[in-house]
Amino acid sequence: MTISVFDHPFLSGLLGDEELAELFSARSAIQAMLRFEAALAEAEAEEGVIPKESASAITRELADFTPDMAGLKAGVAKDSLVVPVLISQLRETLGSEHGKYVHFGATSQDAIDTGLALQLAEAAGLLGQRLDRAVAALDLLERRDGAIEVMAHTRMQAAIPVTASRKIRSWREPLMRHRARLETARKSVAILTFGGAAGTLDKLGEKGPAVAARLARTLGLGLVAHARHSERDWIADFASLLSLITGSLGKMGQDVALMAQSEMGEVKLSEGGGSSAMPHKQNPVKAEMLVTFARFNATLVSGMHQALVHENERSGAAWTLEWMLLPQMVVAAGAALRIAAELAGEISFVGRKS
Amino acid sequence: MTISVFDHPFLSGLLGDEELAELFSARSAIQAMLRFEAALAEAEAEEGVIPKESASAITRELADFTPDMAGLKAGVAKDSLVVPVLISQLRETLGSEHGKYVHFGATSQDAIDTGLALQLAEAAGLLGQRLDRAVAALDLLERRDGAIEVMAHTRMQAAIPVTASRKIRSWREPLMRHRARLETARKSVAILTFGGAAGTLDKLGEKGPAVAARLARTLGLGLVAHARHSERDWIADFASLLSLITGSLGKMGQDVALMAQSEMGEVKLSEGGGSSAMPHKQNPVKAEMLVTFARFNATLVSGMHQALVHENERSGAAWTLEWMLLPQMVVAAGAALRIAAELAGEISFVGRKS
Amino acid sequence: MTISVFDHPFLSGLLGDEELAELFSARSAIQAMLRFEAALAEAEAEEGVIPKESASAITRELADFTPDMAGLKAGVAKDSLVVPVLISQLRETLGSEHGKYVHFGATSQDAIDTGLALQLAEAAGLLGQRLDRAVAALDLLERRDGAIEVMAHTRMQAAIPVTASRKIRSWREPLMRHRARLETARKSVAILTFGGAAGTLDKLGEKGPAVAARLARTLGLGLVAHARHSERDWIADFASLLSLITGSLGKMGQDVALMAQSEMGEVKLSEGGGSSAMPHKQNPVKAEMLVTFARFNATLVSGMHQALVHENERSGAAWTLEWMLLPQMVVAAGAALRIAAELAGEISFVGRKS
Amino acid sequence: MTISVFDHPFLSGLLGDEELAELFSARSAIQAMLRFEAALAEAEAEEGVIPKESASAITRELADFTPDMAGLKAGVAKDSLVVPVLISQLRETLGSEHGKYVHFGATSQDAIDTGLALQLAEAAGLLGQRLDRAVAALDLLERRDGAIEVMAHTRMQAAIPVTASRKIRSWREPLMRHRARLETARKSVAILTFGGAAGTLDKLGEKGPAVAARLARTLGLGLVAHARHSERDWIADFASLLSLITGSLGKMGQDVALMAQSEMGEVKLSEGGGSSAMPHKQNPVKAEMLVTFARFNATLVSGMHQALVHENERSGAAWTLEWMLLPQMVVAAGAALRIAAELAGEISFVGRKS
Repeated sequence: MTISVFDHPFLSGLLGDEELAELFSARSAIQAMLRFEAALAEAEAEEGVIPKESASAITRELADFTPDMAGLKAGVAKDSLVVPVLISQLRETLGSEHGKYVHFGATSQDAIDTGLALQLAEAAGLLGQRLDRAVAALDLLERRDGAIEVMAHTRMQAAIPVTASRKIRSWREPLMRHRARLETARKSVAILTFGGAAGTLDKLGEKGPAVAARLARTLGLGLVAHARHSERDWIADFASLLSLITGSLGKMGQDVALMAQSEMGEVKLSEGGGSSAMPHKQNPVKAEMLVTFARFNATLVSGMHQALVHENERSGAAWTLEWMLLPQMVVAAGAALRIAAELAGEISFVGRKS
Repeated sequence: MTISVFDHPFLSGLLGDEELAELFSARSAIQAMLRFEAALAEAEAEEGVIPKESASAITRELADFTPDMAGLKAGVAKDSLVVPVLISQLRETLGSEHGKYVHFGATSQDAIDTGLALQLAEAAGLLGQRLDRAVAALDLLERRDGAIEVMAHTRMQAAIPVTASRKIRSWREPLMRHRARLETARKSVAILTFGGAAGTLDKLGEKGPAVAARLARTLGLGLVAHARHSERDWIADFASLLSLITGSLGKMGQDVALMAQSEMGEVKLSEGGGSSAMPHKQNPVKAEMLVTFARFNATLVSGMHQALVHENERSGAAWTLEWMLLPQMVVAAGAALRIAAELAGEISFVGRKS
Repeated sequence: MTISVFDHPFLSGLLGDEELAELFSARSAIQAMLRFEAALAEAEAEEGVIPKESASAITRELADFTPDMAGLKAGVAKDSLVVPVLISQLRETLGSEHGKYVHFGATSQDAIDTGLALQLAEAAGLLGQRLDRAVAALDLLERRDGAIEVMAHTRMQAAIPVTASRKIRSWREPLMRHRARLETARKSVAILTFGGAAGTLDKLGEKGPAVAARLARTLGLGLVAHARHSERDWIADFASLLSLITGSLGKMGQDVALMAQSEMGEVKLSEGGGSSAMPHKQNPVKAEMLVTFARFNATLVSGMHQALVHENERSGAAWTLEWMLLPQMVVAAGAALRIAAELAGEISFVGRKS
Repeated sequence: MTISVFDHPFLSGLLGDEELAELFSARSAIQAMLRFEAALAEAEAEEGVIPKESASAITRELADFTPDMAGLKAGVAKDSLVVPVLISQLRETLGSEHGKYVHFGATSQDAIDTGLALQLAEAAGLLGQRLDRAVAALDLLERRDGAIEVMAHTRMQAAIPVTASRKIRSWREPLMRHRARLETARKSVAILTFGGAAGTLDKLGEKGPAVAARLARTLGLGLVAHARHSERDWIADFASLLSLITGSLGKMGQDVALMAQSEMGEVKLSEGGGSSAMPHKQNPVKAEMLVTFARFNATLVSGMHQALVHENERSGAAWTLEWMLLPQMVVAAGAALRIAAELAGEISFVGRKS
C-alpha cells in the first residue's frame, strides 16, 4: 500500500529519504513512546508514586517488548489512538501486579507527544547536518565558480551582469539563517509533554512536578510549566520552519532550472534525467524537485496552522491532522536538503571569467 | 517506512482504506501503464505503424511481465520518472527486434497520465458506490429518527427546535449533489493522454488520430482532440470535488461531535473510542475523523490548484506535485465516506417524538 | 484605508477590476439585500401572509432607501451582521404599523446569501463574457501566428519544434472548458436562500413553499427544496472554478514570461513594464500577474473549502470566512481574464513560418 | 470599491482595524518610500556620490511632496510598480539639475521593500502592545475567575474538572511565547533593502557599503550584508508568526464559543451579537471571529510560503503575491488581538468556587 511518494516502492527513489523515513517508521514511533513509559515508571518509582519492583518489571519488559501490530491496528480503528491498546498489551504481558503501574497518571497524549518530541529532536539534528552539508556544497561551488560572470535577470528579463557569487549567496545565506532558526525550533519542540487526563497531573497530587522534572531529565527534553496538550504553537512553528527551508531551496531549484534552459546555458549539469521519447535530453530533475518540495510544504503548512484551532483540553480532530501532515513535511525538507547538496555538486557555471 | 498515515502499519486501521490503497499501489500503477503499452502496440499494429508480430510479442510479454522493482527505484532516482526504466526493462526482455516497437511514438507522460486516468476512473466508481452507501445509511437514519425533535443551533447558540430530519437532510443532500458532480468529473478524467514528445504525435504522421481513436476505444477512455499534457484542469477539478466531498462530511462530523457532547446529549453513539486515562469516556472518534479529513483535503486542494501553473509543454515540478497530493486526497475521500456510512449507522437521536 | 490591492488607490490600477469591484461594493451588497426584502414583502402579501398595504409601503420605501452607513458599521461591530441593524433602520423609517412586516419570517442569512446569489449570478455573467473575450483574442492570435514554428520545451529543456498553434490551444481550450463549467456553476449559485431562523420557515406555516416559489421567480433565482444555510458546497464549488480559471491563465502567463525571456525571444510584447533602474528593460508585467493571480486564488480556495465545515444550522465563524475570501477570488478571476485578453493582443510569436 | 472586509464601509466595523489600516494606507506606503528616498539622497551626499545641493533640494521637496494619485495608478497599470512613476513625478517637480539624483543607484525594490520594512517594524510595535494587552486582560480574568471549577473536555467529551486557571493559561501562555517570537521577527524584517538593479549596488562602486550603512542608521533599520531582494524568508517568517498568533487566538475563541453554548453555560458573555430572527439570542460573535481570523491567516500563510520560490534576481510574480496577502494578514492579526482583549474582558466563568 503506497499512497504516499515517501513510502512508495519506486517513487521514493527520488522523493524519499531513508534516514528520515526510518525516524518516522511505526517501529520508531513505538520505541519513542516506550522510552517515555519506561522513564515514567522509573521517575515515579524514585518519587515513591509506584513500587520500585513494579518499575523494574516495567523497564525490564519494555527493553524488548514487541507489540502485536495487528492488535495495534485494530485498537487504532476503535480508539483512533495507539496508546490504549499498546498499554493494554503491555499490561497483559506484565500481569496484574505490575501492569497497573504502567502509564500511571499519564494520558495517551503524553506518550504520543513526548514520543514525537523525541523523534523531532532527532529529525532536527539530521536536518541541521544537512543544512550544513548544503551550505558546504554551495561554499565549494562559490569557491570554484564564484568569479564567473552571469547575467542577472529581474522579472524574467536580462538585467546586468553579476558574478556567480552573488547568485550562490542568495541560495546559501537563507540556509544559514534557517540553521540558526533550527536551533531555536529544536529547543521549542524537544519538550516533555506530561499532564495526565486534563493537563493537571491530577493523579500524582503534589508529586507531579518532581516526577515531571525527573522524566524530562532522563529523556533529555525541556521541562515546561505544564503540558501543552492544546497549545500547538511549538508544532506549527516547527512546521513553518520546514516550509521556509524547502521554500528557500525551491528558489535555488527554480534558478538552476532557468539557467539550465537549453537556450540559456548558464549552468551545466553533470547529471540529468532521461526521457523516454527524446534520448538527447538531459532534464534538470533535481532542480525541478526542489521546486516541487517547496510547493508541497507551502501547501501543507496551511493545514498545520489550521490545527492550531485545537478546541478544549484535547482535540482529536486537530491533533490527528498534525499526524497526517507533519511527518511528510519533515521528510520533504530532508529530501530537499539532500537533493540540494547533490545539485550544488553537479552544476557548473558557464561563462567567461570576469 | 511509513510516513503517511494511509500507508501506516497501525494508523491506517482508522485512517486508511484498503480498497482504494490497492488501487494506488505501485503494482496497480505499473499494471495501468502496461495496459496502455499493450493497447498502444495493438492499435499501432492495426494501423500499420508497427509490425503485427512485434505487437503480438509485446502483448504476450506484457501479459505477465514483472518489473525489477529495485531497478525501477534506481531509474526514478535518476530520471524522476518510472517510464524510461520500465520501457528499457521491457525492451531488454523483448530483445532488439520487437523491443524497439514498445512505447513507439509515445512519451512518459502518455503512459503515466493514461495510467492515472484508468486508476481514477476506477476510484470514481468506488467513490460513487460509497456516496450511495452513505446516502442510504442517512436515509435509514432519517426513516428511524427523523421525527425526533432536536434543538437547532445557530452561531453556537440554541435557536428553535427542528426535527432530526432537517439536520440529516443537511448532511445527505450535499452528498447527492456530489454524486451528480462525480459523474461529470469521472468523464473528465477518464480520458486518453497520447501526444508523444510534445503533444503532437509527431512520430506517427497522419496515422496519429486513428491510433489514438483505437487506443481510447480499447481502454474505455474518452478521446480528446489532443493530449492535455500541460492542461491540468481535469486533474485539479477532480481534486476539488474530492475536497467538496470531505468538506461536506466534515460538516456532518462536526455536527455529530457537537450533539454528542456529554452536556448536550442530542445523539448517542453505539461505538466510541476509549481513553488510556479515563476509562469512562466514549470518544466520538469517527465524527472527529470526518472533520480531520475535511481539513486535510481542504489543505491539499490548494497544492493541486498551484499545479495548474504547468509551464511549457511539460513541467516536471508541477506534475510531480500532483503525485504527492492527489492519491492522498482520493484515499482521504474514500476513508471519509466509509467512516460516514458507519457513523450514520452508529448514531441515534435522543429526544421526545414530536 | 487600503489593505487590499483590489481596493487600493494605485495598486488597483493593475490588479483591480472596476466593473467587478462595483458589483461587490457595499452599496451593491445593500441593494441586493434590499431587492430580497422588497420581493419578500410582495410575495408575502400575495400569499396573504402580510397586509398588502404594508407590502406597498415597504416596497415604496425600499425603492429609494439610503441606509445610515455609520449606523450599519456600528451594528456590524456588535452583531457581526449588517442585517439586524439594516432592518431596524428600515423599521424606524417605516413606523410601527408596516415596519413589523419587513423581513417577516426571514433570517439574516436569507437576505445575505440571497443577496450574494444575485451578485454572483451577475459576476458569472461578466466572467462568461470575459472568458469569451479571452478565447476570441487567442483565436485571433492563432489565426495570425499559428503557423509559426516554436520550440516545445519539456521539463525546462528544448524538446522538438511545434507550431505556435499547439501552444495557443493549450491556453485556449481550458478556457473553453471553464466556459462550460461556468454555466453549471452559475446555476448552482443563482439560488434563493429562504429558510427563516433555522431553515424551516417556521413562521410562515403552510404558506412557506408558496412564498418561496414567488420569491425565487421574482428574483430570477433557482428554487431549492430548502435553504442551504449550512450546506456550502454551492459556494465552495464556485470558488474552485474561479481558481481553475486563474490557474489556467497562470499557465499561459508563465509560458509567455518564459518565451519572452531576453535570451529566448520566442515572443515579443508590444507593451511592457518599465524599470526605475534599467530604462532599457521591458518587463512582461501582464504575464507575471497571471501567475500571481493563479497562486493567489490557489491559496484562497483552500480557505473556502475549510469553510465547508459549517457547524450546526449556522456557523458565524465559517460563514464570515467566506466573506473574507470569495469576493477577492471573483475579482482576481475577473482581473486575470481582462489581463489575459489584453496580453493575447500584445504578443507576437517570433520565428520562421514553417 | 470594497472587496476586502478590511477596507469595507461596514464590515470593517467588526473585522477591520483602523490603526493598522492606517499603517497600510496608500498614503503611508508612499510616505515610507519617500523616507527612503530622502535618506538615500542625504547618505549619498555625505559620501560624495551626489552633490550636496541636490540632496538638499531633494529632501526639501520630499518634505511636502504630494504625488498625483491618478498618475500613480496609471503608472502601476503599466509597470506594475509605483516607483518608476513616483520617481518620474518627483524628477519633473525637481527639474533636470537635481532630479537626476533622486533614487540614484537604487531600484524600485529597494524603495518598496525598505518602505515595507518601516511599515512592518511599526506594525510589529503595535502588535506587541496588543499582545501585552491581551495577556493583561487574561491575567485579570484569571485573577478574578481562576479558582472557579470548570469541566475539562477532551475529544469533545467531559473529562474531569479543572480550574478556570488551567484553561486561561492555555490561552495566555502561547501569547507570551508569541511576544518573544515577535521581538526576533521584528528584527528580521526591520532591515534595509538597498542593492540597486541586481543587488550589487553596481552604480555606487566602492561607496556602496558606506552609503548603505548611513542609510540604515538614518532609517533605524538593520544593515545586512547585501540586499535580500530574492531571499524572502524574512517576509515569510513574519507571516508565519502572524498566523501563529491568530491560530492561538482561534483556539481561545473556539473554547469560549463551546463553553458559551446555551446547554453548556460555562461562561457568560456580557456582550453578544443580536439576531434578526431571534431577539432572545446573544451570539458569541467575538469568539467566532477569532476562529475566522485563525482560519483566514492559516489559509493565506500558504501563499506567503509559495512566494519563497522567487526566481532569479527579482520575481514580479512572487513579489506581487506578497502584496496581495501580507497586509491582510497583519490586519487580521491586529484585529484578532484587539477582539481577544475585549473578549477576555467580557466573559465570566460560571461554576462553584472550588
